[in-house]
Amino acid sequence: MDINQIAQMAGVSRATVSRYLNDGYVSQEKRAAIRRVIEKTGYVPSRQAKSLRTGKTNVVGVIIPKINSASVSRMVAGITLVLNEAGYQVLLANTDNDAAREVDYLRLFSEKSQVDGVILIATVVTPEHRAAIAGLPVPAVVLDQDVDVCSCVYQDDYAAMREVAAVALRTATHPAYIGVFEEDVAVGQMRRRGFLAACADAGLEVPERALRIAEFSVDSGYEQAEALLEDYPELDAIVCATDSIAYGALTCLREYGRRVPEDVVVTGVDDSEISQIVTPTLTTVHNHYKTSGAETARMLVGFMSGEENVPRKVKMGYEVVTRNSTR
Amino acid sequence: MDINQIAQMAGVSRATVSRYLNDGYVSQEKRAAIRRVIEKTGYVPSRQAKSLRTGKTNVVGVIIPKINSASVSRMVAGITLVLNEAGYQVLLANTDNDAAREVDYLRLFSEKSQVDGVILIATVVTPEHRAAIAGLPVPAVVLDQDVDVCSCVYQDDYAAMREVAAVALRTATHPAYIGVFEEDVAVGQMRRRGFLAACADAGLEVPERALRIAEFSVDSGYEQAEALLEDYPELDAIVCATDSIAYGALTCLREYGRRVPEDVVVTGVDDSEISQIVTPTLTTVHNHYKTSGAETARMLVGFMSGEENVPRKVKMGYEVVTRNSTR
Repeated sequence: MDINQIAQMAGVSRATVSRYLNDGYVSQEKRAAIRRVIEKTGYVPSRQAKSLRTGKTNVVGVIIPKINSASVSRMVAGITLVLNEAGYQVLLANTDNDAAREVDYLRLFSEKSQVDGVILIATVVTPEHRAAIAGLPVPAVVLDQDVDVCSCVYQDDYAAMREVAAVALRTATHPAYIGVFEEDVAVGQMRRRGFLAACADAGLEVPERALRIAEFSVDSGYEQAEALLEDYPELDAIVCATDSIAYGALTCLREYGRRVPEDVVVTGVDDSEISQIVTPTLTTVHNHYKTSGAETARMLVGFMSGEENVPRKVKMGYEVVTRNSTR
Repeated sequence: MDINQIAQMAGVSRATVSRYLNDGYVSQEKRAAIRRVIEKTGYVPSRQAKSLRTGKTNVVGVIIPKINSASVSRMVAGITLVLNEAGYQVLLANTDNDAAREVDYLRLFSEKSQVDGVILIATVVTPEHRAAIAGLPVPAVVLDQDVDVCSCVYQDDYAAMREVAAVALRTATHPAYIGVFEEDVAVGQMRRRGFLAACADAGLEVPERALRIAEFSVDSGYEQAEALLEDYPELDAIVCATDSIAYGALTCLREYGRRVPEDVVVTGVDDSEISQIVTPTLTTVHNHYKTSGAETARMLVGFMSGEENVPRKVKMGYEVVTRNSTR
């Protein structure tokens, strides 16, 4: 089905159909005839044709590390809100934390006719990422990691972890830590450093066997907590890099008969919806993920419209939320 | 940065760069020179150029109703696995359950050069959806709703709810139900009918005030459970259309001092990861979401390759998982 066939079926000229599709003047009668044909045939006017005229696609590509994540979904909610209001559609590319796939999607988006801008919710930023971002023909903003290759919006992971760990250390003298892989600078390195800083603040030394690495999942949190109970049975706190890991730790402690918060205190980071539902409710960090997504999108809209061209970095604030998993 | 500049910087001809990019013969020395320039500049060869040659984009568009959903993420995991193996990239469009936006994304994907096929994870299917799907120039498959406009893969919502509700009704005589809006045929209508069938099987009549509608969220489940405790205090079961709603109901019952499962039994549908973490653990339905996503993708690959052209409908099996929220 193309514009010529629509014109023929509606009994009007091709130019009239074109004007109709481009919001130009068409008489009421012809307008109705064209609309009837379009409704009947399900014809969809070509965005490409429009994009050829304007040089814009009005689409933004957003690369995300996983889809079933409370923090990612809140970032995407903020991004989508701002971009939709600004007249953009949003295409998401899910990479399941696969760096090679992220670079592939940066390539996919880097054709000028596909998207007007790119947001990368980043986990690991390799030299290949930096090269691919630098080679983009459209503006890009990185969300959730502090990078130099383009503008970015990120969380204050170090300070937030230092503060929530200090809550755990009010009552604990043998704290353990479950983090994530160090290639993720924000969640892996910065939060681990924040934990160690809090321990140093409290005058505590932490043995290597008290430090574990988990994946971003409940099951992995369970496994690492189980390993800690084996290797470091004297523990009286488990500080976790994310809420999901903390849910696994809570479940493990319950099954092993360790009471939370009486015997062991537990903390997370993310303040996801479930943190108020688990028993006991979880002490955690509330990051402003939705706001950070909105901030990222606003920045990108400025770059895409040409109104802004000065790169910048935004470090977001946070709040520690104290609940029943600490004393 | 274009192919001419790459050629100049590498000191080779444009044709050599073109052969390099298209996996044609290039001497080892020239190959190394071109690779160095490409790595240094971050140049990304145009997919459009390739797609102009082959008429294929090797991209599939997947329209999803929400991103922070355990069931949607499992479907997308299955879809992605199969499509990546078949050499396709996947672009997701999140619509937040907004039917108009779904139609917009169907339009966006319907340009031939954007995607080779479309999967719609459907919630509500309006006449506009059907027209937009029928007008697609590429194959489409609908996942999670039983539709006639194209091939589909869906869950056996009626039978699954009838069976899990029967577990609740082993001990309950005053069951209440929290469902979702009826425009969602699968989750709204079919699960509600399954619940009512189970009640009829047990010889129970259910008053209107025992039937509530929630959104797909924990908070909404809490609110509707609270309203039920007000309007239907004699309830001894809350059967929920989804796990998220059930988590809200569990939290509400705990706060109002009703013991689960002693005073009130609770059931969900989805068997999401959290259902084993909440206290008590949740009796629910395990739907094979990941497998249904994989099945959908395999079907679409068949249509896109031209090896398959017979439309079909697949109804997936399920299992009821009995845990501690029922007796």
